[in-house]
Amino acid sequence: VRGAVLLVGDELLGGVTSDRNVSAIARALGPRGVALDAVEIVGDGEDAIAAAALRLAAGRDLLVVCGGLGPTEDDRTRHGMARALGVGLREDPEIRAGIERRLASRGIPAAAAARQASFPEGARPVPNAVGSAPGFRGALRGCPFWVVPGVPEEAREMVRALAEELPVPEGLAWERMIATAGLGETRVALALDEAGFRPPPGVSLGFLPSPGGVRLRLAAPGGVPSPELDAAAARVRAVLGDRAMPALSLEESLVAALAGRGATFATAESCTGGLIGARITDVPGASSVYLGGVVTYSDRAKTERLGVAPALLAAHGAVSEAVAAAMAEGCLRAFGSSLAVSVTGIAGPSGGTPDKPVGTVWIGLADGVAVRASCFGFGGTRDMIRERTVNKALEIAYRRLTGNGE
Amino acid sequence: VRGAVLLVGDELLGGVTSDRNVSAIARALGPRGVALDAVEIVGDGEDAIAAAALRLAAGRDLLVVCGGLGPTEDDRTRHGMARALGVGLREDPEIRAGIERRLASRGIPAAAAARQASFPEGARPVPNAVGSAPGFRGALRGCPFWVVPGVPEEAREMVRALAEELPVPEGLAWERMIATAGLGETRVALALDEAGFRPPPGVSLGFLPSPGGVRLRLAAPGGVPSPELDAAAARVRAVLGDRAMPALSLEESLVAALAGRGATFATAESCTGGLIGARITDVPGASSVYLGGVVTYSDRAKTERLGVAPALLAAHGAVSEAVAAAMAEGCLRAFGSSLAVSVTGIAGPSGGTPDKPVGTVWIGLADGVAVRASCFGFGGTRDMIRERTVNKALEIAYRRLTGNGE
Repeated sequence: VRGAVLLVGDELLGGVTSDRNVSAIARALGPRGVALDAVEIVGDGEDAIAAAALRLAAGRDLLVVCGGLGPTEDDRTRHGMARALGVGLREDPEIRAGIERRLASRGIPAAAAARQASFPEGARPVPNAVGSAPGFRGALRGCPFWVVPGVPEEAREMVRALAEELPVPEGLAWERMIATAGLGETRVALALDEAGFRPPPGVSLGFLPSPGGVRLRLAAPGGVPSPELDAAAARVRAVLGDRAMPALSLEESLVAALAGRGATFATAESCTGGLIGARITDVPGASSVYLGGVVTYSDRAKTERLGVAPALLAAHGAVSEAVAAAMAEGCLRAFGSSLAVSVTGIAGPSGGTPDKPVGTVWIGLADGVAVRASCFGFGGTRDMIRERTVNKALEIAYRRLTGNGE
Repeated sequence: VRGAVLLVGDELLGGVTSDRNVSAIARALGPRGVALDAVEIVGDGEDAIAAAALRLAAGRDLLVVCGGLGPTEDDRTRHGMARALGVGLREDPEIRAGIERRLASRGIPAAAAARQASFPEGARPVPNAVGSAPGFRGALRGCPFWVVPGVPEEAREMVRALAEELPVPEGLAWERMIATAGLGETRVALALDEAGFRPPPGVSLGFLPSPGGVRLRLAAPGGVPSPELDAAAARVRAVLGDRAMPALSLEESLVAALAGRGATFATAESCTGGLIGARITDVPGASSVYLGGVVTYSDRAKTERLGVAPALLAAHGAVSEAVAAAMAEGCLRAFGSSLAVSVTGIAGPSGGTPDKPVGTVWIGLADGVAVRASCFGFGGTRDMIRERTVNKALEIAYRRLTGNGE
């Protein structure tokens, strides 16, 4: 079953926003046996929308159109779909009354958003559980279509609800993902090749490099029996040994490892400014293992919040082995956790020196028995250096806990 | 001048990763007068790549193809482009030698990545300054094309370097963005409408809702004289008054407001786990105004790190006005900053009660003169609640500082 997505928005083509909807749509449809094989992005023009909708609907079983349903003049998806269908727009009085009630309660004149109550003739409105713009649905030259808002949360919720109509193919699986840490793409591929690993028929093996480590994807767009896909995933894990991570994200692997050992964790961050804590607390239930953290962006905060001796800062500078170690120890003490990680580094773009260029990062780890700090030289932009620092800190903590290939 | 982008990757269609390259490509090309008018995403199949490349090249002035240049079997963009061009692949011995040297230095057999040295006949390799896979360039039925890796950092750097060949149209501007805070899309549109604002000819006005506030975009894909676009942007700002923010992101507006007043800032975070600190330290130079923060994910940390009285926690619970205020005051004291913000709330998915449902968030603000806390009920997923909390905290701090419409 082949599906396509049409994204509408000048802001996507202009580079103002990046799409987050294709991924949510693909993941709602995949388990129901609908594999996306094409996505197009067009601007807010009726002609472009109509032409792309007709092109994508041809020969496909589902078209999801996303964006351009807002209350303002620049939103043209209703008009574009009406043109593709060769019909006019018609107002739905019930939906108009609902929008007017909602706007009135906020003191906004109703005319401002009445166009959100118009739909192509013959299309059916789709309620929006989390936002103001209703979607609509129908069929374009025999291909069922869903039109949903561009706001990611609204799109996700509407597609999720609509997808529930589609049957779930029984006993079939379409995807297994395996996260790795500490190996590059070439090495992971080589290890699997040397072990003679080949994906089973109907399954493809993809390599997804990311700053946190390569993720492997066994994909079966048409669906294969679940045990087959599970067996292939298990074989990959066996080949990769401790380089395969238990969960898909480093923070989930770390939180699970902490929980499994009754251990607790705290963070002391400088150049990452709170990102490590943010990533850990992104895992629901992290509160049972994560006690908290300190962001010490100034020398004074390092001294007063973590007890880093001013003499240490003066002698070695804030970005140093001694200060990273003292931060980790101070953090362990301050929070009474069983494990504490610290980072201090130069994320750039300024602040680098010949001795300590931009990208120099010390990561410290204290566990009550020992404290250790390691130096890294990360490349890339400020964002990339911060992201790589967070990933390495999470990986180091995970490996210390599990004793795996530290 | 019309450009198009072709993204290649099963992982994009499968929903495993979201594209981050279109935006970087659009922003590198826009100021050089190249406006994207189409983007397509296809999977890692030679036929699909070739067909889409031919379709997008037709009638356009530039095609950027992105992704599928990795060292593994699943990367097929070289083959797809060769098919579109009607030529074979040919190995570049010099580039092969370079790749072999690099791999040998890491102890990896060269065969593993030799395919990265192959290019369609007639295409010219493009060096990759930040990664391993070279790109390549040529012309497809008269349309110049650039093929770049899918890793965002590598794509961005390669497109940036290639774009430098294109002339910058003198005296023309193609975009102005205005961030707003505290008003919904309908209200912003209404305010501009009532003031009779109309964008000048050749310029379109777009509304970009985001959790931090609606951003307005004045876009002139063909380019208009800069003073015209500046005048339109100034008119929008005048209409919106203090709802228009000085910078594009809340964190930049806040850091600039702090710096302009010689003020310093600290954060005490519970449910956001460090995200506020991470956002502020995303601004280069934030270290001159941001002293640091505390992530107090446990009650004990709130007491020990911020001096929140256990009796307060027992009487009101961690998510309460009293605790938010005490956190802000404790944070101000701990860091000696002139302003401190605190958040404590329930981001979900669990932890809600009938009294304090998921999404209940208290935000406290202390400035040495007074401490105040406000309650919010945010909707959406855990991620959305956290993001909305961060944005509201940054906005509250900004408005207190500037005295603007608090």
